[in-house]
Amino acid sequence: MPLTDRLLLGPGPSNPYPEAVAALGRPMLGHMDPEFLGVLDETMERLREVFRTSNALTLPVSATGSAGMEACFVNLIEPGDAAIVGVNGVFGERMCEVARRCGADVVRVEAPWGRPLDPEHLLDAARDHPRARVLAVVHAETSTGVENEIAPLRALRDTDILLLVDTVTSLAGIPVEVDDWGVDACYSGTQKCLGVPPGLSPVTFSERAIARLQARDARPQSWYLDLSLIADYVAGSSRVYHHTAPVSMVFALHAALGAILDEGLEAAWARHRAVGTRLQESLPALGFELVVPEGHRLPQLTTAWLPPDADDATLRKALLETYGIEVGGGLGDFAGRAWRIGLMGHSARDRSVTTLLGALGELLS
Amino acid sequence: MPLTDRLLLGPGPSNPYPEAVAALGRPMLGHMDPEFLGVLDETMERLREVFRTSNALTLPVSATGSAGMEACFVNLIEPGDAAIVGVNGVFGERMCEVARRCGADVVRVEAPWGRPLDPEHLLDAARDHPRARVLAVVHAETSTGVENEIAPLRALRDTDILLLVDTVTSLAGIPVEVDDWGVDACYSGTQKCLGVPPGLSPVTFSERAIARLQARDARPQSWYLDLSLIADYVAGSSRVYHHTAPVSMVFALHAALGAILDEGLEAAWARHRAVGTRLQESLPALGFELVVPEGHRLPQLTTAWLPPDADDATLRKALLETYGIEVGGGLGDFAGRAWRIGLMGHSARDRSVTTLLGALGELLS
Repeated sequence: MPLTDRLLLGPGPSNPYPEAVAALGRPMLGHMDPEFLGVLDETMERLREVFRTSNALTLPVSATGSAGMEACFVNLIEPGDAAIVGVNGVFGERMCEVARRCGADVVRVEAPWGRPLDPEHLLDAARDHPRARVLAVVHAETSTGVENEIAPLRALRDTDILLLVDTVTSLAGIPVEVDDWGVDACYSGTQKCLGVPPGLSPVTFSERAIARLQARDARPQSWYLDLSLIADYVAGSSRVYHHTAPVSMVFALHAALGAILDEGLEAAWARHRAVGTRLQESLPALGFELVVPEGHRLPQLTTAWLPPDADDATLRKALLETYGIEVGGGLGDFAGRAWRIGLMGHSARDRSVTTLLGALGELLS
Repeated sequence: MPLTDRLLLGPGPSNPYPEAVAALGRPMLGHMDPEFLGVLDETMERLREVFRTSNALTLPVSATGSAGMEACFVNLIEPGDAAIVGVNGVFGERMCEVARRCGADVVRVEAPWGRPLDPEHLLDAARDHPRARVLAVVHAETSTGVENEIAPLRALRDTDILLLVDTVTSLAGIPVEVDDWGVDACYSGTQKCLGVPPGLSPVTFSERAIARLQARDARPQSWYLDLSLIADYVAGSSRVYHHTAPVSMVFALHAALGAILDEGLEAAWARHRAVGTRLQESLPALGFELVVPEGHRLPQLTTAWLPPDADDATLRKALLETYGIEVGGGLGDFAGRAWRIGLMGHSARDRSVTTLLGALGELLS
C-alpha cells in the first residue's frame, strides 16, 4: 500500500498528534476490561478539563462530530418542541435539518455567510419564543471561518431554554468555557484541534440538560445515541453494556488529550492564535483577501478569497501533488472562489505556515 | 501508559489482524483526498466479496455494529410499518427496541435462549402479516452462540417483505451469502471475525431495499445514518461531502479485508470451523457443558455452562490476571452460569485454543 504523507491544512482532519497515532496501535482491550475502563475514565476527566466543565456527563460518543450534533438534538428535543438555531454557514443549516428530523419547529436566526451571528438577535429570538426548548449555535463555523460569540448567551441561564453549542472546530483551538458560558449541551469532533483521527465526538451535558433528558415523555428516537443508556456504560458505576466502544479511537483520544494538557490548554490556544495570525497577516501579500472581518476570524481556520487570476482547482491540485499539502476548497457560494486553510492540532505549527507560504509563493510567482 | 496485552477470547473485540493494526498508523489523509477515496472504493469492493454480493450500496457506516442495525431500520421503516423480528437473544431484543423507536409495530417470533429460531415460524409470520415491511433476524446470536438459519428465508423474495439480517458475529467467520439468500439489508461489525478494532459497521442494501428507500414518504429520522446521503459521498460519482469519514478505521478495515481475501474467504471460514470444533470437543473434559445443541453451534462463539463447582467471577478474574486471557461472561439469564468464548478473526487460531485449554486445565485442577 502507498503510504502517502500529507501536510493537512484543510478544514479537518488535521495531522494527528504523534501521541495519538502511537496510541492507536496499543494492544486491543475488551470494552469491559478494567484497564480499558480506567483509560475511559481518564479520558472523560481529560475531556472535562478541555471543555472547562465539571459536568459528570462528559464522554466520547462512538461516531464522528455530526453524530455528536445528532446526539444532542435527539436527546433534548421531542416532536413539536421549538428550537432556535443560529445559521450563518453549512453547520448551522445542518443543525436545522437534524432538529427538523427530531420533529422540532425550527426558528432560524441568520447572518450572512462570512459574518458572525449577533448574540442580541439570538437573545431576542429567545424572548420572542420563551417556550423554545433549545437555542443552538455553532461556535466556529467550519464552512466560513467565523467565530460566533457564545459568552453573551449565558443569559439563557435565566430562562428555560437550553444552550446547545457546536465546538467541533473550536475545542482545544480557541477558548471554550462550557461552565462559565452556561452551555448546557456541547459536542465536538476529534479530527480538528484535538489532533486525533476522525471517529469520535466528545459530548458534555449540564445538570439541567440531564434533568431535561430525565423528564422526557418518550425515549429518544435513536437507540445508539440515547445518552441515558450510554451513560450507564461509560460513566455509570455498574457499567451496563450498551454497545462496543471504539477502543483504539478512545486510546488515541486519551493520548492526544494528554499531549494537549501536558502542553497546557492555554498554551495550545496561544499556539493556534499565533500561527493563525501569522498566516492571516501573510496571505494578502500573495494576493489573497481575507473573507472574515477582523475580530471574528478563527485562527485555526482561515477563509480567504483567491487571487483574481488564480484557478482554484489547478492551484489546489498543484499544492497536493507537488508539495503534498491539502487545503480546503470553499463550500456553497464560496466554492471555486475561496479557500479554507486549517491550522489545527498538531498541524498548528510555524513550520506549517512556512511550508504553505513557501509553496504558494513558488506556485503564484 | 501500560501496554497490557490480552488474548481476546470473548464475544468481541477479538485481537485485530496485524495488518489492521499496522494500517491504523498509516499517515492521515483528508476524507476528500483522491488517495483516500481510492482506498474507500477498494474497501467497498472487498466488502462485496466478503458479503458475497454485487450490491452497489455496500459501505462501512461510520460507527459500531449497533449503529449499522439502526441504519437498516431508520432507512427501511416508516412510522406505523409492521416489522417481524426473530427473538432468541439480546440482539433480537435490541432489534425490537430499535424498530419501535422508528415507529414500527413489532411482531415477535420467539425461540428460547440457546435454541435457534424456526425458519418456518418466521415464514408463517410473514404469511400472517403480508403487509409487514421487513423481517429481521440475527444470524449469529452473540448472546447465546446460536446460529439462526437464513437460507430458507430467501422465500421472502416472492413477497414485499424485505429480509434484514444481522451478521455482526458471522461475517467472515461462517458462510454469509447475501445474494444467494436473498438478503435485502445486512449489517455487520468490524471487531469480531473481520479482525479489525471496533468502530465501523459494514452495511449492504439490495436493489429492492434501495427502491424502498427511494419511495419513502418522509426522510429517515436520522441524518447521520441516512443512507441516501451517505451513498452520495461514499459511492456517488460526485462525492458529495456528508460527514468526515473515520479515515484510520477505514484503513484498518481495508487492510484486514485484504488479509482475509489473501487467505481466502472459504479458508477463513474453515479455520473458524476447525478451531471452534476443537474447543467444543475439548470443553466437556474440563467439566463444561455446551449450551447449544449440535448443528446450531457457532464455531466462532461457544457458549458453555460452567462446571458445577466453578465460580464465574473468580475463574474469569484468574484467567485475566494470571494469563491475560479474556473470555465473556453470560448475559441475561446466563449471567454467572455460562461463558461466551470467542474464536474470531485473528484470535481464531489453534494457539488460542491450546492456550485457553492449558490455562483452564491449570486453574480447574
